[in-house]
Amino acid sequence: MVIIIGVSMLVPAAVDLYYGNPDWRIFAQASMTTIGLGGMACLACRSDIGPRVTSRQGYVLTVVSWIAVSLTGALPLWYSSLDISFCDAVFETVSGLTTTGSTVLSGLDQMPPGLLVWRSIMQWLGGIGIIVTALALLPMMRVGGMQLFQMESSDRSEKLSPRIRDMCMQIVLIYVSLSVICMLLYRFFGMTWFDAINHGMTTLATGGYSTSDMSFAKFDSNLALHWVGVVFMCAGALPFTAYAVLIRKRKIGAIIGNQQIKLFGLIITVFTLLLTFRLAQISDDSIFRSLTMAAFNLVSVITTTGFASGDYLLWGPAAVMLFFFATFIGGCSGSTAGGFKMFRLYVIFTGLQAHFMRLRSPSAVVVSRIDRHEITSDIFNAVTVYVCLLALSYMVVTVALGLTGLDLITSMSAAATALANVGPGLGNIIGPAGNFQSLPDSAKWILDVAMILGRLEFETLLVLLMPSFWRD
Amino acid sequence: MVIIIGVSMLVPAAVDLYYGNPDWRIFAQASMTTIGLGGMACLACRSDIGPRVTSRQGYVLTVVSWIAVSLTGALPLWYSSLDISFCDAVFETVSGLTTTGSTVLSGLDQMPPGLLVWRSIMQWLGGIGIIVTALALLPMMRVGGMQLFQMESSDRSEKLSPRIRDMCMQIVLIYVSLSVICMLLYRFFGMTWFDAINHGMTTLATGGYSTSDMSFAKFDSNLALHWVGVVFMCAGALPFTAYAVLIRKRKIGAIIGNQQIKLFGLIITVFTLLLTFRLAQISDDSIFRSLTMAAFNLVSVITTTGFASGDYLLWGPAAVMLFFFATFIGGCSGSTAGGFKMFRLYVIFTGLQAHFMRLRSPSAVVVSRIDRHEITSDIFNAVTVYVCLLALSYMVVTVALGLTGLDLITSMSAAATALANVGPGLGNIIGPAGNFQSLPDSAKWILDVAMILGRLEFETLLVLLMPSFWRD
Repeated sequence: MVIIIGVSMLVPAAVDLYYGNPDWRIFAQASMTTIGLGGMACLACRSDIGPRVTSRQGYVLTVVSWIAVSLTGALPLWYSSLDISFCDAVFETVSGLTTTGSTVLSGLDQMPPGLLVWRSIMQWLGGIGIIVTALALLPMMRVGGMQLFQMESSDRSEKLSPRIRDMCMQIVLIYVSLSVICMLLYRFFGMTWFDAINHGMTTLATGGYSTSDMSFAKFDSNLALHWVGVVFMCAGALPFTAYAVLIRKRKIGAIIGNQQIKLFGLIITVFTLLLTFRLAQISDDSIFRSLTMAAFNLVSVITTTGFASGDYLLWGPAAVMLFFFATFIGGCSGSTAGGFKMFRLYVIFTGLQAHFMRLRSPSAVVVSRIDRHEITSDIFNAVTVYVCLLALSYMVVTVALGLTGLDLITSMSAAATALANVGPGLGNIIGPAGNFQSLPDSAKWILDVAMILGRLEFETLLVLLMPSFWRD
Repeated sequence: MVIIIGVSMLVPAAVDLYYGNPDWRIFAQASMTTIGLGGMACLACRSDIGPRVTSRQGYVLTVVSWIAVSLTGALPLWYSSLDISFCDAVFETVSGLTTTGSTVLSGLDQMPPGLLVWRSIMQWLGGIGIIVTALALLPMMRVGGMQLFQMESSDRSEKLSPRIRDMCMQIVLIYVSLSVICMLLYRFFGMTWFDAINHGMTTLATGGYSTSDMSFAKFDSNLALHWVGVVFMCAGALPFTAYAVLIRKRKIGAIIGNQQIKLFGLIITVFTLLLTFRLAQISDDSIFRSLTMAAFNLVSVITTTGFASGDYLLWGPAAVMLFFFATFIGGCSGSTAGGFKMFRLYVIFTGLQAHFMRLRSPSAVVVSRIDRHEITSDIFNAVTVYVCLLALSYMVVTVALGLTGLDLITSMSAAATALANVGPGLGNIIGPAGNFQSLPDSAKWILDVAMILGRLEFETLLVLLMPSFWRD
């Protein structure tokens, strides 16, 4: 993974060279350093036995590689002409690789193109990395109920290909194709090539880094671009296995029959209509413009992208709270989105239903299913454990942020936006119109941990804190 | 229950008569009306079969009687010389009976004594009502994992007495005795008889109504009174069955060996020390005064009492957030306290532990216990369902409050304080120095529902909203 990061640094180096920017040397140097480090780690760990890992090694490896990738990815930002601290460079990298999209940088519009491309590439790599992790790694480690998505399930009809490796290649191809289509459409509807390529990468990754301080408000009058954004943010937040099934079987049912996608569509539709109604009340804009703004900002938060267009903090307290809770929701499992995710919402919902049925008739036997997989009590338990860990992490991170001196709204929304990998928070400082620059360094380190914690679905990291994990 | 409320109204009538206040007529009239209504309901439902209820009837009866008691209890407040609206009278009654302690009244210090006594009596009755409900009704209805406290458990050593009725009488006696001791100590350390009796009732009930707008800050310089308050707020928040066992077996182990009480002690100690440390940093007071203020305000929130002494919103953002999360925690099950409660925290904690053990060694068999009762997966599930219902209710209530026009902090903390039956919220309007008077009527009705919802542990009320509940 470190070597991939190193090789990717050659892209911004080439871009800066093309634009005649001296930063290309920094990227080239950072690339050599990173490739060298990665290569050394490879050689040191070479073994003839092949890459068989126990589940314990899996947890440790996942966490260690996240740390390694975050530190090496920060090198070009740290050494660049930006003159930012190491803390800021790491924050920007972690926020990029976890596809969160919170930024400490301002003056993006005047920034060297290589740096902007590097930020977008980190999100794009983070996005595909997360899909592969969610499909191949988390189910094996039985994290957060993800065993439901195990490829070796008895349900052979959903099995994509005999080997996970092939399936991953297929997913990567789909990811690349969707990104390219998104870029072309952005270009077609009026972005420059540079903006289109950068936004295309960060849209599919549901990351949210932009090439402008104004984020999507830069294209305020171009509603078509907003709708391209809405469609491809949603595309990035759908389960990528569903695309693979769609391509193999050529049946649209793979998409519209999927329980996660159904629930996702329902939530987005209801919330968007509520917000449109609210926006139509308070502004003189046309209904279509209100609908566009409501849909774009809501989809941006629910898919955990974090593009902003217009300051939704001015839409009144109920709308702000809707955005706050939407921060936690997230997209579907097996996508680039973070947050709680549709599959867990669905499991919780069926669990509550079954519980109420049993309150009424204690002897009732209730079997719940999601896409033909039975939701066993094991999976329900794992999901509720996820809920508890999320709540616990949220409280600890919030109080810790408060200790660094941040106010209530900033702490509460920063913790939420980091744990769910969304991007912007609430309030004047880190709201959609704001920036994480002015936060104290201690708060930034806390948020680094929170972003990785959320991205690894809590357990993968928290299990390492259990003394019993290290016992033999 | 309505008849009990009616008869209790004769107490404030007598008090007002003694002080020569014309309000005694209103109490006497309200009492007659209430007793009459209750008697008619009794006669109409008379039956020779005796009071055997199915669990379905149990849910309906519980909810209906809460509504009936709230409406009749509001009569004297509505008709009184206060000249408040029906909405305000109901809010004050619901807040009293649920032992929440949020108030819409100001000018308490100049108020007719009968009204003050009536507010205290409502909390005191609400307190004992909740203990009996938690011991006799909720376990039978298997609400929120409370089946753990079923008296017909196989564990005979904890069985208090052959019949629940006897056990309830014993609990009532303990409740009365503790209240009287608390009143005497309040008097001994400097309160007037009137203040001591009123505060004694609302302390044991963990209710929090006071006879002064300043709440406990009225006794700001009298630290001994604060410590009496701390001790008896805690006493009200401990499981009353533990007292009964203590008396029967004369073994202190019934208290200090109880898992809920251990966890409660641990949480209060840690949080108090943190807050004392913080308070010592920012103020010039002596360490003992800082400790007193920290302990009093923290215990007041965690036991869901809601007395205030000094505005803890000035203690800095981390302290405010600690208070916000403490709002949810609550006391022990089987006490007068509301909130999430110790037993559920303990179940969640052991559940997480077992989950992590299984992540590490999938074949491990883990049996968790609380006070010799096994925590079955049924109970773990019921507790996690409670977590989900709490989270869901919290979001709905918060957004609903936002729709009435309240700001973010007020909505979020009002929802928390109502659902956990604490009392004060955060912010300038409803903070410990504030009052619920200025809230719009719609917000007050929403909070009425939230207070009852929290008091009935969510399920008892929410199950009535399921269509399948009404099917035969």
